[in-house]
Amino acid sequence: MEEVKLPQSQPPVIILVRPQLGENIGKAARAMLNFGLVEMRLVTPRDGWPNPQAGPAASGADIVLEQARVYESVADAGADCSQIYAATVRKRGVTKPVVTPEEAAREIHADTTGRAAFLFGPERSGLETDDVAIARKIVTVPINPEFGSLNLAQAVILMAYEWSKGVTLAQPPETELPPVAPQEELDGMIGQLEEMLDGAGYFFPPDRTPATKRTLRTLLTKPGWSSQEIRTLRGVLSTLARPRDR
Amino acid sequence: MEEVKLPQSQPPVIILVRPQLGENIGKAARAMLNFGLVEMRLVTPRDGWPNPQAGPAASGADIVLEQARVYESVADAGADCSQIYAATVRKRGVTKPVVTPEEAAREIHADTTGRAAFLFGPERSGLETDDVAIARKIVTVPINPEFGSLNLAQAVILMAYEWSKGVTLAQPPETELPPVAPQEELDGMIGQLEEMLDGAGYFFPPDRTPATKRTLRTLLTKPGWSSQEIRTLRGVLSTLARPRDR
Repeated sequence: MEEVKLPQSQPPVIILVRPQLGENIGKAARAMLNFGLVEMRLVTPRDGWPNPQAGPAASGADIVLEQARVYESVADAGADCSQIYAATVRKRGVTKPVVTPEEAAREIHADTTGRAAFLFGPERSGLETDDVAIARKIVTVPINPEFGSLNLAQAVILMAYEWSKGVTLAQPPETELPPVAPQEELDGMIGQLEEMLDGAGYFFPPDRTPATKRTLRTLLTKPGWSSQEIRTLRGVLSTLARPRDR
Repeated sequence: MEEVKLPQSQPPVIILVRPQLGENIGKAARAMLNFGLVEMRLVTPRDGWPNPQAGPAASGADIVLEQARVYESVADAGADCSQIYAATVRKRGVTKPVVTPEEAAREIHADTTGRAAFLFGPERSGLETDDVAIARKIVTVPINPEFGSLNLAQAVILMAYEWSKGVTLAQPPETELPPVAPQEELDGMIGQLEEMLDGAGYFFPPDRTPATKRTLRTLLTKPGWSSQEIRTLRGVLSTLARPRDR
């Protein structure tokens, strides 16, 4: 089926605010590229930029690191973005709407004109109140209240994953299950089995036979076997029907 | 607003098949616990179990590691599970339904009686065809076709995250199909059939035997038969196995 071509939203920008370890920047890049995000921005990374630890951790997502740009402030990094989401748990004294990654993704896809960004704080401490102030909304991953321990790359991957679900080309491969065999092929197999069972005295007592046959038919119809599968099963039955030496 | 109290599905089991690094087992545990999954099973971990590298990587998710159990085979590990999902890209020559993590989560929540499991392969190579054969379905994360590089813990976290989203609002089952039998009951039936076929000389030539057995397993796994249906089929097989007079 041909899908209607709709205007697509731009992929969101990932802004890492004062990231500490180059390794985590690399992992975040890898997480992003898995789901089609390529634009990373860094606000005053602790160990400068470029960082030699980032590349190996990116596992091939080098393009994200090569294009990453460094900014002096969160406001600069998000200057061209119309919708900024601060990835954090809710902050004391900050009254902003809180959305899930799923809701954020839906909002981003609904806006085909502006640019969106996700802000992530330093690994150890997270975003400061002043960083969050830049954002329109807070995005929080609903997490086990007794064990909340998402690292930076994991938080990034969940946002990227949710966003990617709304992109038309991120659909899963269509399942290519073989077509279900025509009814007559199934009937042929059922007939073969019933004949074997009849010879072996399975249908007893006689007044239960119709119900028993119905039960067998029901459970053999359930799978929706293909022609090939039915051929295989008929081969199995033929083997079992062969005279044996005991 | 008071929500109607619905029966909840059990959390799925995470089965790591031949995991290589203890560090990755720990990271997987951390990923699980973030979203409320606690039951991990390990199939022949390469470096034995317990593994001293796992604890530090779990960042406090020790309860998952402490309760992790080790199994000799994938079949053993999933024996009590009625719905097994193999986390992998599609396998050559394996025709099973492919679902997204979202669809898998929805299915798991719809089944309030059985137990579900996700299978994850070794870090480097992923699941083998024989591992996938145990599963009813394949679950694949729709990913950037030009850069697919999810590590084990990332794959685990996405499944756990999707499952957790349905926890409070689990939907009631749509149709009341009988629950799928635990894997060990299906395995019992497959074992009985293979023994009969072996006696009848079905498996020939010998070098084709593994592939033939896989084909049979796949087509017998497809239906999702209930315990009652499997009992019926075992009765059929027992009847066909009885000595006959010709």
